[in-house]
Amino acid sequence: MKIDELYALLRRRGVLWPSAEIYGGAQGLYDYGPLGTALKRRLEDAWAAWFLGLSRDYYLIEPSEIVPEAVVRASGHLENFTDPEVTCESCHTKVRADTLLEKVRPEGVDGMSPAQIGEIVRAHGVRCPSCGSNALGVPQPFNLMFSIPFGAGAEERAYLLPETAQGSYLAFARMWDVGRKALPLGIGVIGKAYRNEIAPRQVLFRMRAFTQAELQIFFDPNDFVVPFGSVCDEKVPVVRSARREAGNEEIESLSAADLLASGLPEFYVYHMVHLLRFLRDVLGYPVQKVRFFEKSEKERAFYNRIQFDAEVQLESLGGFKEVGAIHYRGDYDLSRHSAGSGKDLSVTRKDGGSVLPHVLELTFGIDRNLWALADVHLTHEGDRTVWRLPPYLAPVPVGVFPLIAKEHAAYALRLAQELSTAGVPAQYDESSSIGKRYARMDEAGTPYCVTVDGGTLNEGPDRDTVTLRSRDSKAQERISPAALAGKLLPALRPPRPTGGEPPVRA
Amino acid sequence: MKIDELYALLRRRGVLWPSAEIYGGAQGLYDYGPLGTALKRRLEDAWAAWFLGLSRDYYLIEPSEIVPEAVVRASGHLENFTDPEVTCESCHTKVRADTLLEKVRPEGVDGMSPAQIGEIVRAHGVRCPSCGSNALGVPQPFNLMFSIPFGAGAEERAYLLPETAQGSYLAFARMWDVGRKALPLGIGVIGKAYRNEIAPRQVLFRMRAFTQAELQIFFDPNDFVVPFGSVCDEKVPVVRSARREAGNEEIESLSAADLLASGLPEFYVYHMVHLLRFLRDVLGYPVQKVRFFEKSEKERAFYNRIQFDAEVQLESLGGFKEVGAIHYRGDYDLSRHSAGSGKDLSVTRKDGGSVLPHVLELTFGIDRNLWALADVHLTHEGDRTVWRLPPYLAPVPVGVFPLIAKEHAAYALRLAQELSTAGVPAQYDESSSIGKRYARMDEAGTPYCVTVDGGTLNEGPDRDTVTLRSRDSKAQERISPAALAGKLLPALRPPRPTGGEPPVRA
Repeated sequence: MKIDELYALLRRRGVLWPSAEIYGGAQGLYDYGPLGTALKRRLEDAWAAWFLGLSRDYYLIEPSEIVPEAVVRASGHLENFTDPEVTCESCHTKVRADTLLEKVRPEGVDGMSPAQIGEIVRAHGVRCPSCGSNALGVPQPFNLMFSIPFGAGAEERAYLLPETAQGSYLAFARMWDVGRKALPLGIGVIGKAYRNEIAPRQVLFRMRAFTQAELQIFFDPNDFVVPFGSVCDEKVPVVRSARREAGNEEIESLSAADLLASGLPEFYVYHMVHLLRFLRDVLGYPVQKVRFFEKSEKERAFYNRIQFDAEVQLESLGGFKEVGAIHYRGDYDLSRHSAGSGKDLSVTRKDGGSVLPHVLELTFGIDRNLWALADVHLTHEGDRTVWRLPPYLAPVPVGVFPLIAKEHAAYALRLAQELSTAGVPAQYDESSSIGKRYARMDEAGTPYCVTVDGGTLNEGPDRDTVTLRSRDSKAQERISPAALAGKLLPALRPPRPTGGEPPVRA
Repeated sequence: MKIDELYALLRRRGVLWPSAEIYGGAQGLYDYGPLGTALKRRLEDAWAAWFLGLSRDYYLIEPSEIVPEAVVRASGHLENFTDPEVTCESCHTKVRADTLLEKVRPEGVDGMSPAQIGEIVRAHGVRCPSCGSNALGVPQPFNLMFSIPFGAGAEERAYLLPETAQGSYLAFARMWDVGRKALPLGIGVIGKAYRNEIAPRQVLFRMRAFTQAELQIFFDPNDFVVPFGSVCDEKVPVVRSARREAGNEEIESLSAADLLASGLPEFYVYHMVHLLRFLRDVLGYPVQKVRFFEKSEKERAFYNRIQFDAEVQLESLGGFKEVGAIHYRGDYDLSRHSAGSGKDLSVTRKDGGSVLPHVLELTFGIDRNLWALADVHLTHEGDRTVWRLPPYLAPVPVGVFPLIAKEHAAYALRLAQELSTAGVPAQYDESSSIGKRYARMDEAGTPYCVTVDGGTLNEGPDRDTVTLRSRDSKAQERISPAALAGKLLPALRPPRPTGGEPPVRA
């Protein structure tokens, strides 16, 4: 589906809609409705089960999303978290430079100076998209953080974090004390990040408030052992930056062992494979729609030593889009916060020496992947519209219907309650024909439907059984209601990583 | 435990700590560590299972926490969401009036004019708590909302919502279309609210960013039928405002039927009983520590027609503290947003007439209850410190230990992974003696511990069994690992309401 059709369907079904819709909406802000909220929660749970399942020393915390100014000064965001912005001197409209130059320079303006950008604007005779004037000012840096007056009298300043990662860095010292005082130590956060985007667009792909799931792994660069044998034969679809610079953008399928041989560290490739497995095996993205896109030294932030973006090909957005990434950030973060806070964040090694931990960051966009789950799995098939979500991600795991409301409602309502109590959230529906109810559930991503009918209540071979229908096979079977929860529950648990012992040391 | 001891214990165990701790903290902001994050998530899940379980027309959504200015202008927050603040003319310190007058007027200053407050300051010769000067200015209203510059050029203004309720009101029109187009319709939100408190204090009880769980029930005031028979004999501990004004603050135990006879509406008492059951039966607060404290017309906001605060007696905070409330808000909210947005929010009744729905608000503080769960259930018992959390709230449901790490670690690690995969999050621990490991788990609220020992691995009667130890009974039994998940899972599911059909209409 194209973006407009998909977004219209998601709005109509109450998956998401523009925030403050009755006031005309608020640019870059969205509300999740009942289906979206449940899907988001399950996606977060699946992320946590997978990535925190990689080691018993990987923890989930919930840090504040508001920080004092000293934090973003130390992290570099106060100075550097800016986008160049051009103001029209005629109508005063402000436009992001990359948006303004989208047509003449589709590769973007990352790393260019304001003067260089201004030169391109002039050279191409670019005009204001609002009034058509060519009186465009010199590009100015625009800080994307939201600042807030903080405290009585508002003489302090605080900021809404533009990335959840900072919360993990701030917590490192405390977590060292709380945990086993050993590296590697992983600190995960599922939380909001806020960016005052100049040009929000593509619905959930450039929002002003969004949810990230990020795992920061703190490690000793001389001692990060992973069970590489469990991943070494896995094929990873990659686009290497060196090949790209030589003009070849094609996806190569390289094994983990190949990637290692090319110079990437074991710990990096190991976590890359686990991100691939999550996208492919847990979220169900077809592997031919996934690629790991390496950023060159010029393209990545200066503190990132290695960066591959995980990208998924989305029909609605017309190409591969970033849904996650793996950043090897070196000791940049802890050294900045050591300097900024005056607290030495280095820790004692097993051999007695001292080390300032390096950071491997696994970042994952919850909203972007929620959109990707709709793009990839929600399809028209003949006259059916089916959202083929894996069962453990389905907002409503099971629909419960009375064949005839007047006769079977009481039994079906009780069954829906019993299933919910047993850990299988069930939605009761009695309106319109069974076919239409199946169709509604197919569209909502519900993998199972249960129907109570005359056979259930009357004497005969079907007594005390109900019909279980599977969305994907369309197969129907009679089953005892007492056996339902036991049959469905295993499919509703998100997978955890297997293969190889977790990278823990006693 | 007193507040300092309890807070120190929670910090040490990594339940929570001050945000940006290495920078000296940020007033009124806290981070949740691994135990706190897991407890918070389970508390949220328990709230949702209970309150959204009351009707199949009660939904959970996740609206934006940032709204355009027009929203808070319509809701009245721009004008009225203020606290009186006094500035010292000598040292320029700003103090909340109620804090300044805490000793001379412990009942607070709600509803008093700036002039009246100034009069009390003068009459009692109150001095600046910072410099001691008596040159205190006239109290000024201080708006507690955080404002943020929004959009390129920051010419728009937006606000961080001071209560999640507004997100439900904004979503009502969309939810009417998405749902069954019938009243009552419940819209629940678990989300952040933000208040620039002048004087944050009492740790999680007055924060600047906190999590609320709120259910807004939209209903037709002439037609809100509830299964009252299922609650009518339940005794509710109340403090009525009329008795209070007559000088009697004692708790009365009144039945739901008594409360009805006293003039409260059925729908109000019905939801009050369900809040009581949640606090008592789900969170496990002893009923003698719970009371419903009625606010008089003078004390409650003008749009609230009926208000009882749910309060819990907390040793750490020296008395009964509000942890939730039930507000009958009439049609105030939808009429304000109809006027503010220009969109008529009235809906069509079954009889064809039109009605602007009234709102019953159930509000519940996640952070405050997290603190209350520590205050009530975390106790010293002889030389044990035990956190007697109900199993479905425990951050770590089960600990898995090898009796001797060298011999039993592999088996125990595999068992911990299998339990986690089967839906029973398990934490492996091999350090120090079994007694110390039990003690650590007792303190973390873990209800079950499993030990792998020689009997498990060697030939003999205990082969392939492990020891299951219960925190509360201290009883130990041998059990097959294969039977563990099945035995523990039912206790880990949060209860759902029972008794009486849910208030739904076909």
